[in-house]
Parts: sequence; C-alpha cells; structure tokens
Amino acid sequence: MEDLYVIKIGGNIIDDEKKLKSFLHAFSSLGSHKILVHGGGKLATKLAAVLGIPQQLVDGRRITDAETLKVVTMVYAGYINKNIVAQLQSHSCNAIGLSGADANIIQAHKRLHPAIDYGFVGDVDALNAERLTQFLKSGLTPVIAPITNDNQGQLLNTNADTIAQETAKAMSRHYTVQLIYSFEKSGVLLDINDESSVIRNLTKPYFEELKSTNAREAKIFAGMIPKIDNAFLALNSGVKKVIIGKAEDLFSLLEGKSGTAIIDQ
Amino acid sequence: MEDLYVIKIGGNIIDDEKKLKSFLHAFSSLGSHKILVHGGGKLATKLAAVLGIPQQLVDGRRITDAETLKVVTMVYAGYINKNIVAQLQSHSCNAIGLSGADANIIQAHKRLHPAIDYGFVGDVDALNAERLTQFLKSGLTPVIAPITNDNQGQLLNTNADTIAQETAKAMSRHYTVQLIYSFEKSGVLLDINDESSVIRNLTKPYFEELKSTNAREAKIFAGMIPKIDNAFLALNSGVKKVIIGKAEDLFSLLEGKSGTAIIDQ
Repeated sequence: MEDLYVIKIGGNIIDDEKKLKSFLHAFSSLGSHKILVHGGGKLATKLAAVLGIPQQLVDGRRITDAETLKVVTMVYAGYINKNIVAQLQSHSCNAIGLSGADANIIQAHKRLHPAIDYGFVGDVDALNAERLTQFLKSGLTPVIAPITNDNQGQLLNTNADTIAQETAKAMSRHYTVQLIYSFEKSGVLLDINDESSVIRNLTKPYFEELKSTNAREAKIFAGMIPKIDNAFLALNSGVKKVIIGKAEDLFSLLEGKSGTAIIDQ
Repeated sequence: MEDLYVIKIGGNIIDDEKKLKSFLHAFSSLGSHKILVHGGGKLATKLAAVLGIPQQLVDGRRITDAETLKVVTMVYAGYINKNIVAQLQSHSCNAIGLSGADANIIQAHKRLHPAIDYGFVGDVDALNAERLTQFLKSGLTPVIAPITNDNQGQLLNTNADTIAQETAKAMSRHYTVQLIYSFEKSGVLLDINDESSVIRNLTKPYFEELKSTNAREAKIFAGMIPKIDNAFLALNSGVKKVIIGKAEDLFSLLEGKSGTAIIDQ
C-alpha cells in the first residue's frame, strides 16, 4: 500500500499568519499522498463576540447554538479553509477544500447526551474513504474543515481531532497511514513549562502510569489526554503511526527526529 | 454529447429560505448532469454593516477591500455554499461545494482598471472543464461559490453571472449545455412592473432595438443588460441555449414553458 499522511493543524498555528504560511509551504512539498485537517482558531470566538453571540461553555465544552453554528460554518469552512486552499495552490499543491457535507465525505449525527444539549455538535458516523481515495488518485489534496452534516440538511460543528482520527482510521483500508497532530508544542511534555521535556516514545503502559500514579503529572496532561486516547484508538484501528509535535517541525516530525511517537505496545 | 444544465441562482432566492429550499428540491430532482452557481445575497452586506466595514461603491460596483473579501469569503464560500450543499445532500443529490481555488477549477486575476481600484475583484482567466467533467462523471454535482483565486495565494471576489457563463462556455466542449439564469423575476420583462410582460424569445436584433431605439425601454433593462450581453457571448461560444426566468419555475423554464429564451440569430 502507498503511504498517506493525515495531518491535523491546531488553532494556534491557524491564528499565526507567518507560522501557517511556513507550515503550508512545508506541507505542500511532501512527496507522498496527504490530507490536511484543520481546526478553528480564535477567529470564530472573536467574530461571535463582535456579533454579540454569547458563547456558552458546559464542562469546558462549547455549546453550538444556531447562531454559533453560522459563525463556525463561515469561519472554518469559508475563511480558514479557502485561505489554506489558495495558499496551497500557490505552492502548486492542488488542494480541494471540503466540509463533511461536500461529496458527503463525513456523515455525522447531532450529539445526544442525557444531560447536556450540546446544540449543533456532530459525532462522526462514517467517513467516505473511497471518495477521498478517488480524489488522492486524481492528484488532489483534500483539506478538511471541522464541519459535518447529518444527511438531513443540517450542518454540524465537529471536533477536528476526531475528524483527523476518523480520516486516518478509514483511510487505513487503502493506504499505510501516519497520523500527525501538529500544534504549538514540541510534543507530549512531561513538564508543560519545559519544551525540552518531550516524551519521545509514549507506550500505553507508560501513558497509564503517567495518568494514574502522579496527580501532578496528570494535571500536566489535562488537555492532551483525549488526543492521546484517540491516538491509541487509531493505532488499534489500523493506523500505522501517530505522531504529536510542533507544526513548524513538520519534516523532522515525519523523520522521527522530533515530537512524540505514540506506540501501540 | 450528454446534456448538462448550468444553473445560476441569484441573491433574492438565497435570501428567502423557503424559496431556496423549494428551488433546491426541484434542482436535486433534475435527471441530467447539473452544476449550480450561486450568488451572494444580502447576508454579506448585512454582516459587513454589523462589523462596521464600510461598503464603497464606485459607478454602482462594489469595491472589495481586504476586510470585505474576508466577509464575502466567509458568507459565499462558507455559510451559503455549505448550507446549499447540505440541503442537496438531504435530497440525495451528491453535491460538492467549490470555490474557484478548490481543485483550482477557476483561475482569475485581480482586476486591473486604469482609473478605478476595484480591490480584490477577480476576472476569470480559465476554467478547468476537465476537472468538473471528472466530478460529474463520478456522480458529483458541483456547487460553485463566486470566489476565485489567482494561483498566488490570493482569493478574489468574482461576479457569479460571469462564473456561470464561463462554466457554461468551458463545459460546452464536453456536454450539450443549457445555461439558466434563475432569479426572482419571470424573465426579461418589457415592463419591469408587469410580470406578465415577459419577452419569450429574445433575438439579437430585437435586443439591439430595445436597447437603442427607446430610452424608456432601455431604462427598464438597466440591470438586465450585462446578463443578456453575457448570454449572447455564451451562445457564440458553444452554449446551446440560454434561459432567463424565475427560480421557482425551474421545471417549466427547462421545458421552455416560461421565462425568456435568448436566441442566437
């Protein structure tokens, strides 16, 4: 099977024009097949504030009401997605921007929760790996925005990490997939304040140990835990390798010279 | 050659949720290949007003400054495009939303004008008919937003009528194309206040006569003249038929039972 990189870029890179530009230049020069999944950045929050749309958080999760959905659809699938695509085109990378509704590549359903109404938040049901494969084979590089649809006309706000993971899993049927979560940190850190404390190889037992035995360490991991849980799930579902690291270090991440490798053992 | 409809819907339909819904239902049920090109509607103007972005008009044309470009990219390529795509998906029409940057389907350049700086407005250079044909053959229905790119990373605001015309012209190499401009009026009207005054067949000599011989009639045509000029250009470039009429009457328009047929003779 041919190689495929599924690369997710997080919000902090998107908010930084210079870093984003440099990342997209590096991304466009990757020789093998690739799919980019992007998050949202702060622009949606800023725009909602200017428009006077109150942002509700429940247990740290944002509630997507109808007005917020409009904003994230505009910002994620419109502004961010099309600017990334145009920049990649300038580097001769034939990108195609997609929401989950486009070519129906991601089917999702509105999240049902017994206690919390998350609003228009989508949980992924299925990903059309055949269509994405067709695009890749015809020379296109998919750029996926974190907006999905329920096949009943409803757009849904969906976590970009989850989309990256589901994409990597589904594409593993057709390619040897490496999943890269790239963001502003150098990798999974033992000490959040020390960029040099990167865990180079994170096995499941070590991860469990870090989570359970040391409250101070566990705290350090707070935001990373779902990402790493997802990474292990991806490895269990056919993804060859998961790497977490700094977006600016894309080449060295892919060469295994920086970042954290999540290892299934 | 197989038949292809290139259908443009204008702003007033997009602003009317009920009419848009009904149009998209009819559109999705068309048996032959089809491409939808949509305009912008009033949402971009409203959003710009709320955001305090002044809208400059020169000779009745909107100037697209950097902030306005952000707004139209968000609204046209994000909100409107993805909502149309999601609605079409709910009718089992496998739509794919595209700006001109996506898969580089439309190459454009920033408009150069000796006296007026239109800002980030794009004039179309080329349309990738082969890529659109590939999408159609693989069961996809392209939905094109009026945003293009210059291959140097710059998005550009582009007239949707022009995109529809260029799409129809380029696709004439691969399909027998009918170009339909659908909007809120019943067709080209002799009297703008009388919806029953539809000119059923508009030939070039008759159009010239209406434009030149009667100032009162000419006034009536004001907004329609570029559309009709474009229609004749399209017919000269291989498009089989151009129809102008009411979006709600899609079926009868296509059957030749309503609207105005622009006739090349």
